[in-house]
Amino acid sequence: MKAVRFIEEGRPPEILDVPKPAPGPGEILVKIAGAGVCHSDLHVLDHGIGIPGPFTLGHENAGWVAALGQGVTGWKEGEPVAVYGPWGCGLCHQCQTSAENYCERHASIPSYGGGLGSDGGMAEYMIVPSPRLLVPLGKLNPTMAAPLSDAALTPYHAIKAALPLLTPDATVVVLGIGGLGHIAVQILKALTSARLIACDIDEAKLAHARQLGVERTINTQDGALAAEEIADLVGERGVTVALDFVGAQPTIDLCSRIVGRASRISVVGLAGGTLHYSPNMPPFGCEVSIPYWGSRTELIEVIALAESGHIRAAVETFPLENAVDVYQRLREGRIEGRAVLLP
Amino acid sequence: MKAVRFIEEGRPPEILDVPKPAPGPGEILVKIAGAGVCHSDLHVLDHGIGIPGPFTLGHENAGWVAALGQGVTGWKEGEPVAVYGPWGCGLCHQCQTSAENYCERHASIPSYGGGLGSDGGMAEYMIVPSPRLLVPLGKLNPTMAAPLSDAALTPYHAIKAALPLLTPDATVVVLGIGGLGHIAVQILKALTSARLIACDIDEAKLAHARQLGVERTINTQDGALAAEEIADLVGERGVTVALDFVGAQPTIDLCSRIVGRASRISVVGLAGGTLHYSPNMPPFGCEVSIPYWGSRTELIEVIALAESGHIRAAVETFPLENAVDVYQRLREGRIEGRAVLLP
Amino acid sequence: MKAVRFIEEGRPPEILDVPKPAPGPGEILVKIAGAGVCHSDLHVLDHGIGIPGPFTLGHENAGWVAALGQGVTGWKEGEPVAVYGPWGCGLCHQCQTSAENYCERHASIPSYGGGLGSDGGMAEYMIVPSPRLLVPLGKLNPTMAAPLSDAALTPYHAIKAALPLLTPDATVVVLGIGGLGHIAVQILKALTSARLIACDIDEAKLAHARQLGVERTINTQDGALAAEEIADLVGERGVTVALDFVGAQPTIDLCSRIVGRASRISVVGLAGGTLHYSPNMPPFGCEVSIPYWGSRTELIEVIALAESGHIRAAVETFPLENAVDVYQRLREGRIEGRAVLLP
Amino acid sequence: MKAVRFIEEGRPPEILDVPKPAPGPGEILVKIAGAGVCHSDLHVLDHGIGIPGPFTLGHENAGWVAALGQGVTGWKEGEPVAVYGPWGCGLCHQCQTSAENYCERHASIPSYGGGLGSDGGMAEYMIVPSPRLLVPLGKLNPTMAAPLSDAALTPYHAIKAALPLLTPDATVVVLGIGGLGHIAVQILKALTSARLIACDIDEAKLAHARQLGVERTINTQDGALAAEEIADLVGERGVTVALDFVGAQPTIDLCSRIVGRASRISVVGLAGGTLHYSPNMPPFGCEVSIPYWGSRTELIEVIALAESGHIRAAVETFPLENAVDVYQRLREGRIEGRAVLLP
Repeated sequence: MKAVRFIEEGRPPEILDVPKPAPGPGEILVKIAGAGVCHSDLHVLDHGIGIPGPFTLGHENAGWVAALGQGVTGWKEGEPVAVYGPWGCGLCHQCQTSAENYCERHASIPSYGGGLGSDGGMAEYMIVPSPRLLVPLGKLNPTMAAPLSDAALTPYHAIKAALPLLTPDATVVVLGIGGLGHIAVQILKALTSARLIACDIDEAKLAHARQLGVERTINTQDGALAAEEIADLVGERGVTVALDFVGAQPTIDLCSRIVGRASRISVVGLAGGTLHYSPNMPPFGCEVSIPYWGSRTELIEVIALAESGHIRAAVETFPLENAVDVYQRLREGRIEGRAVLLP
Repeated sequence: MKAVRFIEEGRPPEILDVPKPAPGPGEILVKIAGAGVCHSDLHVLDHGIGIPGPFTLGHENAGWVAALGQGVTGWKEGEPVAVYGPWGCGLCHQCQTSAENYCERHASIPSYGGGLGSDGGMAEYMIVPSPRLLVPLGKLNPTMAAPLSDAALTPYHAIKAALPLLTPDATVVVLGIGGLGHIAVQILKALTSARLIACDIDEAKLAHARQLGVERTINTQDGALAAEEIADLVGERGVTVALDFVGAQPTIDLCSRIVGRASRISVVGLAGGTLHYSPNMPPFGCEVSIPYWGSRTELIEVIALAESGHIRAAVETFPLENAVDVYQRLREGRIEGRAVLLP
Repeated sequence: MKAVRFIEEGRPPEILDVPKPAPGPGEILVKIAGAGVCHSDLHVLDHGIGIPGPFTLGHENAGWVAALGQGVTGWKEGEPVAVYGPWGCGLCHQCQTSAENYCERHASIPSYGGGLGSDGGMAEYMIVPSPRLLVPLGKLNPTMAAPLSDAALTPYHAIKAALPLLTPDATVVVLGIGGLGHIAVQILKALTSARLIACDIDEAKLAHARQLGVERTINTQDGALAAEEIADLVGERGVTVALDFVGAQPTIDLCSRIVGRASRISVVGLAGGTLHYSPNMPPFGCEVSIPYWGSRTELIEVIALAESGHIRAAVETFPLENAVDVYQRLREGRIEGRAVLLP
Repeated sequence: MKAVRFIEEGRPPEILDVPKPAPGPGEILVKIAGAGVCHSDLHVLDHGIGIPGPFTLGHENAGWVAALGQGVTGWKEGEPVAVYGPWGCGLCHQCQTSAENYCERHASIPSYGGGLGSDGGMAEYMIVPSPRLLVPLGKLNPTMAAPLSDAALTPYHAIKAALPLLTPDATVVVLGIGGLGHIAVQILKALTSARLIACDIDEAKLAHARQLGVERTINTQDGALAAEEIADLVGERGVTVALDFVGAQPTIDLCSRIVGRASRISVVGLAGGTLHYSPNMPPFGCEVSIPYWGSRTELIEVIALAESGHIRAAVETFPLENAVDVYQRLREGRIEGRAVLLP
């Protein structure tokens, strides 16, 4: 079968023929319906992840159970499934609670997941090492569901940690209404009634936020001006939760300026910024986190949100053969919504 | 190998020769160091559990990894382990968070665990169906650790749910200082600084509580008098958390009388009582629960508590061959501490 | 000024002339815009509350700050406000967190609130004993907002305690779509994306639920049949949260039958039923609570929900002079939505 | 009466005669038993707090109720009390939950507390503006209890936010075993069974930690070496919670190096360092906070911990007349434990 392969850092991906895999004991073979193309793959391609290649790319995957390895129970062939992405040891305290994204043995595990050390979903089939890593899709279309396992799960995880603060009298600001941010605003509307302000430097993305039902949008091209506009809206209490899906220095600095006391900043985007935290800046009692992906049960919850129609990822599909071109377009910012490769 | 077998409801257990099992794909063979003898086994023997026998008894087990089935990783032969007892589907939302004790598919799973539908630990070896069901024991002696998987895990689970209420200014009452209760008071002293009152109708057990460092003990033979004594101690605020390890009508009724508003009652003992909850009795805002066993991560935490010396189960060991007699002694209340069978 | 007075238990309310009160040090005078007429007042009239009358009725009040007693800061004359209803000691651990509904000194405080021992809001003015008991209404109409302080706050409190369970894959059942229940479904839609099922024995109320956006409604006239219908919808996992705004024996029993393991039942309605909790019925790990009213901060959050348009109480207004007739109509079930008296 | 007065920034404190105050409506007069001398006072003296003087210093106060202003209920003359320090507006969402340390109107309130804009406790008497700001001391000696309101409350608040992470299998590191840190280790032992490691650069302070029952102490003079020692103890999981009571750049940097994924760093000390948070350093999922003081209910809990003997502040007393000298000794690091001034 054809597969999009990471060869080594600094080299473009290659489309190569690899043998169709067979599931070993305890493993599951998944026939891929779609594999999302994620910005973080560019980082993998350019810098590697500390695990030598080659391996098949693709860490946002959904499809159908195709074959069960010996000893596997609880799944049936043909069942549509999302593949949970960050694979941990499965046994530590974090993994036992389903938070493999924070596996305590991260430093010593041989792979971080399919497409991240192991063969991923940019191929006709992929091996999933344990039934615990699958979530049933119910009536969802597996092709459209593929991005949920990252582009929806990642903001869901960041938002879930902030929920206790997001009472109806609170204000939440989302910075960056792109691939993750446009899903974040949908999740926030589904799970909270907090006042929601969407920020971006691109008017088209702010318009997208308004289409998704966000009443307040602010262009943050001029950070100082944006901080003032937000302050006018929220008063001296300040913003309660700021979710930064960009992570550049200007967006991080804006977060620090707009939040109030006993607030929260989550920096989800990885655009190279650093949050500098010193007494009273951001204000006292602010909780700052740079979260990573999400847990297995959070993926169950994300799938439920999608099934009930509360969230929907904007998806553009491409044939697997075009992968090299798609990565190039992604690098150049020429992908609308989430690109999904079809094998 | 010899095994203590449940044959069918209403029949005494039998010690029979069964073949030494071999682990299938994904399974683990555990060499048993000790298997706890639990009151709930008497219920299994007398009334069954809705799953036909025969099967080997023993749901409180610890020992050493003896062999790994195909595809199992993360464990080594010889490693000392506790066996997590309540086996769920492993895939539902509850099981994914490690709370297999509340498996959502409880009504349809074919077994509730080793000794509870599947072959348990009253034998030289037992099969554990997944590596997720083992917890490493570190330096703990596996024989002494066997009861931790039930007699410590069950109160730990009940206490953990109550922890947010157990601030240093709160009062917690433990009713029944027997097999579970004497560990409950140790857990409470390890995890909280709430005022602790231990209750029993047996002066020897109250003396045991005092040896364990409990300052206040009350004999509840006369329930009305005991309620008054407790009221004198706690004032009109009332008791914050009542943990009933008996579960008879008098102990449950006492709980309802002594707790204050916004309190909690956990009925862990299964002696046949019913909690009747109507407006203001127990007081408004009381949370009532009848919990069941505990989760996999809670077992990790219990093992850590034992390793650091914070809890210790009182254990009396017997040869496996004496199992029928031991059950009879248990039925007659002639076991001190927890009986553990040695294969 | 005219006031609707409780005289003594077993006597109908009387409309009497009383002097306009003046605020003492630390107190606030509120000019009443509206006072809700609550079912619980009938209980007060028939059975008393253990505090001798006479006092003015009305515990669901909103209006405008009319005068500040000496030493009061933070409020301005003319500011529209809701009056928080359950007045505690203000100093115990519960009151300090704003949960005066669970005041630890409930047994010894001289009054439970305005209309509940002290003079309430069925008059032109009422005294509020502390600024901590007011919540600003922002742009809300005080007449329409009066019921929020009880008919919305009470379900909000019950729902808030259940929020951690109400993940998008969970199911919540609301029993009784009357004065509190019709607001409960709005709150649930605002704060969660859990699957929502509304139950009542009255088809008109089920139609109301559908108008409010509830997709699934079930007539529970035949409890056994309703339990089956619900089981068909939710499968073996069962219902995660059941909120009973009736509290009669049949609705409570239905709750116990439909919930799954590790679930929650809140009995908010006070129609005389008792929840009988014994091992496995309701299922293990179910948390049962009979909550009471809500906290001061929960009222802040309820007001925010109303201001942002997420909840709206159906209100019918009457002149204060008609109070005796309105109570009679309430007793006969001839009030649609919430009756509010206008002074 | 004599009072230790802040005059203006950059000037030493002065001991002046001021009139004995009388409580206005809603206020309480407290006769001071002791006023703690806090490092943060040096910051007040040197740089001011943005509120013009003069005012009496002293924000860690305890004593006895001396007189009640008009309208005050719930307190009796002679009752021993701790004075809660950070005074907020009393009405915002944060203040309503008792967290006046995070008052939403912090930017506009006229004073931050007694000794912080209003007259504080370094005098024979002080005015407390509301009964909500007092906590009864029970049997505690008010002189010895004065430091609890800051030196114990501040670490308690930081620890309480970390409690859900502090399971028995977790590791907590305390950096700086001085005025706050030596109480922090006592609080940790009282509320958790997590593995505790105490760090300092002063062997005498590490010896103090061991006297308080801490088993593991590490000298962090050489930060790289200390990081290795800690890594050897905790393995690849890393430290779960790091509490920095120094807050200098080396201690903050050490925190970032030793914590694992899904961990927490609280920087409580204010020695001028900045935490630089970028992806994966500190590791993903780490929650970072710079908390401030604590809430009113946390002070209730701290007092309960002291009453039950779980925590004890090391106190050295001085006559009020020596205040100027005591501040000088504090500046020079020549105070052992907490200095308390006696009027």
